[in-house]
Amino acid sequence: MAGNSFGELFRITTFGESHGKAIGVIVDGCPPNIQIDEEFIQSELDKRKPGQSKITTQRKESDTAQILSGTFEGKSTGTPIAILIPNEDQRSKDYSHIADKYRPSHADYTYQMKYGIRDYRGGGRSSARETAARVAAGAIAKLFLKQHGIEIFAHVSGVGEIESPNVDTADLKNLLEIRESNIVRCADPATANEMISFIEKIRKNGDTVGGRIFTIIRGVPAGLGEPVFDKLHAELGKAMLSINAVHGFEYGSGFEGSKMRGSEHNDIFTTENGKVVTKTNFSGGIQGGISNGMDITFKVAFKPVATIMRDQTTLNQQGEETTISGKGRHDPCVVPRAVIIVEAMAALVIADYLLKQKAYLV
Amino acid sequence: MAGNSFGELFRITTFGESHGKAIGVIVDGCPPNIQIDEEFIQSELDKRKPGQSKITTQRKESDTAQILSGTFEGKSTGTPIAILIPNEDQRSKDYSHIADKYRPSHADYTYQMKYGIRDYRGGGRSSARETAARVAAGAIAKLFLKQHGIEIFAHVSGVGEIESPNVDTADLKNLLEIRESNIVRCADPATANEMISFIEKIRKNGDTVGGRIFTIIRGVPAGLGEPVFDKLHAELGKAMLSINAVHGFEYGSGFEGSKMRGSEHNDIFTTENGKVVTKTNFSGGIQGGISNGMDITFKVAFKPVATIMRDQTTLNQQGEETTISGKGRHDPCVVPRAVIIVEAMAALVIADYLLKQKAYLV
Amino acid sequence: MAGNSFGELFRITTFGESHGKAIGVIVDGCPPNIQIDEEFIQSELDKRKPGQSKITTQRKESDTAQILSGTFEGKSTGTPIAILIPNEDQRSKDYSHIADKYRPSHADYTYQMKYGIRDYRGGGRSSARETAARVAAGAIAKLFLKQHGIEIFAHVSGVGEIESPNVDTADLKNLLEIRESNIVRCADPATANEMISFIEKIRKNGDTVGGRIFTIIRGVPAGLGEPVFDKLHAELGKAMLSINAVHGFEYGSGFEGSKMRGSEHNDIFTTENGKVVTKTNFSGGIQGGISNGMDITFKVAFKPVATIMRDQTTLNQQGEETTISGKGRHDPCVVPRAVIIVEAMAALVIADYLLKQKAYLV
Amino acid sequence: MAGNSFGELFRITTFGESHGKAIGVIVDGCPPNIQIDEEFIQSELDKRKPGQSKITTQRKESDTAQILSGTFEGKSTGTPIAILIPNEDQRSKDYSHIADKYRPSHADYTYQMKYGIRDYRGGGRSSARETAARVAAGAIAKLFLKQHGIEIFAHVSGVGEIESPNVDTADLKNLLEIRESNIVRCADPATANEMISFIEKIRKNGDTVGGRIFTIIRGVPAGLGEPVFDKLHAELGKAMLSINAVHGFEYGSGFEGSKMRGSEHNDIFTTENGKVVTKTNFSGGIQGGISNGMDITFKVAFKPVATIMRDQTTLNQQGEETTISGKGRHDPCVVPRAVIIVEAMAALVIADYLLKQKAYLV
Repeated sequence: MAGNSFGELFRITTFGESHGKAIGVIVDGCPPNIQIDEEFIQSELDKRKPGQSKITTQRKESDTAQILSGTFEGKSTGTPIAILIPNEDQRSKDYSHIADKYRPSHADYTYQMKYGIRDYRGGGRSSARETAARVAAGAIAKLFLKQHGIEIFAHVSGVGEIESPNVDTADLKNLLEIRESNIVRCADPATANEMISFIEKIRKNGDTVGGRIFTIIRGVPAGLGEPVFDKLHAELGKAMLSINAVHGFEYGSGFEGSKMRGSEHNDIFTTENGKVVTKTNFSGGIQGGISNGMDITFKVAFKPVATIMRDQTTLNQQGEETTISGKGRHDPCVVPRAVIIVEAMAALVIADYLLKQKAYLV
Repeated sequence: MAGNSFGELFRITTFGESHGKAIGVIVDGCPPNIQIDEEFIQSELDKRKPGQSKITTQRKESDTAQILSGTFEGKSTGTPIAILIPNEDQRSKDYSHIADKYRPSHADYTYQMKYGIRDYRGGGRSSARETAARVAAGAIAKLFLKQHGIEIFAHVSGVGEIESPNVDTADLKNLLEIRESNIVRCADPATANEMISFIEKIRKNGDTVGGRIFTIIRGVPAGLGEPVFDKLHAELGKAMLSINAVHGFEYGSGFEGSKMRGSEHNDIFTTENGKVVTKTNFSGGIQGGISNGMDITFKVAFKPVATIMRDQTTLNQQGEETTISGKGRHDPCVVPRAVIIVEAMAALVIADYLLKQKAYLV
Repeated sequence: MAGNSFGELFRITTFGESHGKAIGVIVDGCPPNIQIDEEFIQSELDKRKPGQSKITTQRKESDTAQILSGTFEGKSTGTPIAILIPNEDQRSKDYSHIADKYRPSHADYTYQMKYGIRDYRGGGRSSARETAARVAAGAIAKLFLKQHGIEIFAHVSGVGEIESPNVDTADLKNLLEIRESNIVRCADPATANEMISFIEKIRKNGDTVGGRIFTIIRGVPAGLGEPVFDKLHAELGKAMLSINAVHGFEYGSGFEGSKMRGSEHNDIFTTENGKVVTKTNFSGGIQGGISNGMDITFKVAFKPVATIMRDQTTLNQQGEETTISGKGRHDPCVVPRAVIIVEAMAALVIADYLLKQKAYLV
Repeated sequence: MAGNSFGELFRITTFGESHGKAIGVIVDGCPPNIQIDEEFIQSELDKRKPGQSKITTQRKESDTAQILSGTFEGKSTGTPIAILIPNEDQRSKDYSHIADKYRPSHADYTYQMKYGIRDYRGGGRSSARETAARVAAGAIAKLFLKQHGIEIFAHVSGVGEIESPNVDTADLKNLLEIRESNIVRCADPATANEMISFIEKIRKNGDTVGGRIFTIIRGVPAGLGEPVFDKLHAELGKAMLSINAVHGFEYGSGFEGSKMRGSEHNDIFTTENGKVVTKTNFSGGIQGGISNGMDITFKVAFKPVATIMRDQTTLNQQGEETTISGKGRHDPCVVPRAVIIVEAMAALVIADYLLKQKAYLV
């Protein structure tokens, strides 16, 4: 209700501020007897952690996950899995100059208006640091989905005006290797180079830039999703829009599809090796809010990071005009690190609907 | 959980199939002492009802709402408001030819996969007829929001490749009049004419086309929204994506914003007549998931209607290839009627968050 | 949230006031392909309806249920089942004398304090008439449970100081026949006669009396229930306490068990025909909040009906002392009709946990 | 959904097993700007902690609470408050003898049936150790309620057959002092002595005994509670029944009230110093599920602790009969420590409904 939980049957609740003692998550509803591979959880966190390359923030956090409960002899027991990630590199003083000021396009002003109090250090609860907890929880969801043959792959498909050509998605494992071979996490190597150069240039200018992430979920059986309000893509959309800096979501044909005609957009059913498939996939694997067994595809748009290394005018808490200077260590572009957050949220959505499907199909 | 409810504090639950006895909705959590203006509810339903113009379906439904409970002497009592809308023009025979076939890009196949049974008449529960119940509930939410000085305005900003220029939003009442003066519900008269001609052409070809709706919510005080997962725009996104045929959602700067730099995208705070405002509004009135008092703006993309008046190949329930012919009375383009659904869902989201804000700010 | 829904996966939402147009319920989450036997639903409602015997209220309501949605060719489709029960015998004038007065031990004063407005006719939403909707929904839950071999039996075990001896529960079908052979619904015929005479005497005195209902749920497999807060007996307790006039709930050994020693109270495990059983059942079929496969047993206490046919002093809305006279047609004792409400709520709880169990045990 | 959360607006989620690394709780929905008095939280935990007297378990746990998030400069910020309580005195070997056996009247068998896996050490998640997390969360709820002038007082009103006479509840602060002056936490000193002697005798016999706790909530304004399913007493009942070993709950007149007549049971409204009151309080401060401003009163029954220091026969996981010996350090009677758990759960319920009331009364 207060906004810190996600999912119904596979449910997570996160806590923690950017500069508090720790952040963390409770995963409630993970089925029992899932092998909880701690190394995998850590490897996922490592892909999100700050300081991993020259085009991310230089802040240093090891983001080490500690599992406090919910497992026994390496397996989930069906009880809540609590994961703790202590905060380490907290230079709270970096923020003393903004204690009284509202940073433009940040949540400083709105948190103050909502709560009448705010932890200004690093944005407090509004910081994207919270997403580390999501990644840890998403890793558990992925371990569960793996048992059901479900794979999730995301990559950076756009940075600023640069757009990756469509990549061949036949072999997701191979694509993942390509993605992880470059620091911007684009699965098209040539575009990746272009993006990296561009982000470096942006950063040197003290500026930031937005980007886009394309995602594919493979192996979801037909029949997942709930009708009407909890359509599978509606929940995916909410999950993505809940990630810091996201300003847009589209699935399947998306906004371009709204320019098409029915006769070109309809996905014709046929069979392939005895399996029902569609000849095209403008539906993005979802029809009437329910999966049809095809690849689920969607795209997410991230606005440019609000913290720039330049002077900006703004207001202080007294409503007076003042100047704010960009300080601290920030990302020039969030999408390279956000790829793993997108995957985590997608995994959480699918895990939740998989449990629902089991409940209702008696 | 099963997907037929929306909202937490201001909560609706809808029921009913396209060709059953009735559809309807329970609004649970409407505050007491709200004047429930039945004429207003009906006038909202009239804007969504079929058969209203030459560019909508010619099906005839009066969509007459009956309030069964929750009011006393014209006012809400705080108890559940149940609204019933009997189904009238059910030519179920129109659907006998598809009882055994999966219509392309419809929910026939996925419902069968999910439930192992489906009401094939008119798409059953997956029919957009369900949205009449949302409009009735949304009308109640609007009556509540009106008391708080909150206005919602949506119009058709795009049909196929046709895109409306930005309209002057200073006077929403006037804009509403312009919108209602044409059957496509675009607030730019010249573009409206172009759209109407285009849709008529499409319809004569037995085809359909997608479109886009732009929405503005004015008067929302700063501080509405919940952090992290239940960000105001995330819930708005889910609400919109839950509407039949929606394939994309963006707010504020949206997908275009992901191409911008932070230095151009940041909304600079200043004051206007003693009120905190931002010089630009790329944030779309929402920062960190919480309203900042500026206009909330978003855009929704609708795919083309799947039912076309042409022959298409498809599969039957036995997995055999077959041909399906377009029959029945369908919309060539849903956006003119969907405008009111978008407004209804927006009203429901804002009403819910308004109640939450009252709860938590003690 | 606003209190008119019950259950999570098998979820009901009721609506309607005592003297409005209709009451009703939406059952959301009923699994598909359940045979929805309308005659059974009606027969359950008939057991609760007013006017059925000389010891119940003489109000006349046929309580005819109409299914509006969610079924196709006699089977559930997995979509919301809406049931409407029109109100018939509304002598709203019976209540004009109390429009301005707070009836003692009724909800008049508290509803006024909570909402600042109330529908005074027949208690409005606080009327036990609402429970007809629960009985209709409970009938659907029973149809679902029947498929899983689960039976529910309740009977009146006490009226005032009269207490039924323990009945032999080996054959629940036979017990049900005995119960239905007398108007007080006690499965011990001798005690039933005593209770009936007593209630008649009470009624002639213009007074009312409380009572107790004992319930047994048989056939629940081991493993149903959720740990910690949603223990099976905690939810059963909430379900029972939500029924009008209930003041107490105990399961298994109950309050008497709190006087016992561990050495006598512990239920020793053993096997019977290869099945794990316990030699005694002080646990009432639930251990650690989870069913153990034994009969689930509980008892519910109902206070005497607040409306008595006598003059009482009270306050009016202006806070002045005034006199109120008992008028209208009311039950001298609610337990004979409440038996079916208790069964309905028990069925709803078990149905919900059965779905949860399917979800989590992957 | 999976049972580890309680409350809707003021919502807690607990985690942790008896012998894991830590237990803890997230409080989500605590309003901002509440002074979070850490000493008070610790003093509440100290009242529940093991080893506090000769009639409790001799296990030693300091139960030191660490606040990880959600506060800034000593005040709540409206974001999730996470509290960690590390486990210290874990003699897991004490449990190796039961790894394969089902302890009678414990949750060993049912957890195994539900999950197919269990952490047998100390009962794992089913251990009452989890309630320390509730006490910490309840302390925060109490700090919030204090601001609204709401007090909660519970004491041991019965142990085995021993029943305390009614105590004078005019001065709750004084009563609390009396209660805390004896180790059994009964507010009647003479009865307290009797209870202590009795429990000591029971313990020497290697046996255990049940008991009862009476609670009073004072200062709740009229109008708290939701109608129909979420009646205030229904949620209180669920809260109490969710506490380990509870077998019964009654409020106001309770089970005894079911033996009374309406003419004696009705609470007559009158005024006292301009305030609406009732002459008697059989309603227990709640009418129609909503508070009427009078003291809320209820009683909870606890069964005897299942672990006794005697040999018992039982089954092992293979379904073979075996003998189990009582080992470890256990409470002979839980009620002295449970008093603070009952208060904590009551505080959580009232806090939740207080927020709901603010939401809906616009």
